Amino acid sequence: MNPYQNFLDKLTWRYATKKFDPAKKLSADQVALIKESLRLAPSSYGIQPWKFYCVENPALRAKIKDAAWGQPQVTDASHLFVLASRINFGTEDILAYIQDIIAARGIAESEIDGYKKVLLEFIEAKTPEWMDNWAAHQVYIALGFGLMAAAENDIDACPMEGFDAGKVDVILGIKEDGYTSRVMLPVGFRAPDDHHASLKKVRFAEKKVIKHIL
Amino acid sequence: MNPYQNFLDKLTWRYATKKFDPAKKLSADQVALIKESLRLAPSSYGIQPWKFYCVENPALRAKIKDAAWGQPQVTDASHLFVLASRINFGTEDILAYIQDIIAARGIAESEIDGYKKVLLEFIEAKTPEWMDNWAAHQVYIALGFGLMAAAENDIDACPMEGFDAGKVDVILGIKEDGYTSRVMLPVGFRAPDDHHASLKKVRFAEKKVIKHIL
Repeated sequence: MNPYQNFLDKLTWRYATKKFDPAKKLSADQVALIKESLRLAPSSYGIQPWKFYCVENPALRAKIKDAAWGQPQVTDASHLFVLASRINFGTEDILAYIQDIIAARGIAESEIDGYKKVLLEFIEAKTPEWMDNWAAHQVYIALGFGLMAAAENDIDACPMEGFDAGKVDVILGIKEDGYTSRVMLPVGFRAPDDHHASLKKVRFAEKKVIKHIL
Repeated sequence: MNPYQNFLDKLTWRYATKKFDPAKKLSADQVALIKESLRLAPSSYGIQPWKFYCVENPALRAKIKDAAWGQPQVTDASHLFVLASRINFGTEDILAYIQDIIAARGIAESEIDGYKKVLLEFIEAKTPEWMDNWAAHQVYIALGFGLMAAAENDIDACPMEGFDAGKVDVILGIKEDGYTSRVMLPVGFRAPDDHHASLKKVRFAEKKVIKHIL
């Protein structure tokens, strides 16, 4: 018996839930689980170039639904997470992060002068477009964390790229916060009659996607 | 008692392991766990624009280490995963995916003609740069899955962007396969004296990174 079969079975159980049961809500512990899984996600240099919006407000979600081609998951799921990346990530972000390290670890600023220099040099040579994509990449790590945390704990979710980010940024005031929306993650519980739940999961065979080099 | 505390504790237990114990190897079940977690990761439209390399070969890993500024995780970890995204993702990839759906679900091609059209239109309007970043985003979802699957099952890992992708592509023949390396994931077990293990994890406070909109 594979000791990891139960863990893997949950990854097969999950699917991009298209029809949520609007009557079923996450418990406070379940909401906290998703929030903490996003917050604890790793990122390049640990730098966390992101912000996560947890939207319950029905009026705002109706507007977001309009900006997402009317997809019902946006309003029917228990909670809607919107994952955003930092705009114009730069020197001030690195200095804030360095202060956070100093505070968390109780060390002297001089002890991480070298690391600060590494980080400042890292961003120095990059174009704004490169930085923008790099920040987005990190958000997708957090997306993976949110999706897997949901699946492993029997919560349904649906990763969504299909929305107008510019409109969602305006609806939630994301741009004013200095971020831009990248991907949405409605979470909740599947409706009993979501026919997508019974469709066989399509994944390429291991021999196509994994090359094991001995 | 929070029923998810144990799950979350593992996310605090994990860290970017810099010093692996070279004597400790993953079991076959553990290797399969990481492979399956990558393979089962979700992607935009379920389209899986990726390939994963699981490298054991010591000579190749020594070369990869040279292309990664000598970072010892590359050779000391039990297994080295290299996550790659599809180059020039296009029509033939979509047609292959459609055939896979037909085979997996035993349906007629005509039943997914509409979906095929949606996918072909999706790529039609995109620049090569856009497609390249989009494929990379998906790889980072898989990275999140690999990282969390490791952590939740007491396996150490270290996400790595710091390497010369062009060189790694040549060393492993990734470009010939039609892919390019994006991120590496050595997995194994921490050395007892890795001082990074005891450093306090630095994450921004919830109030900074999560906005809850009621």
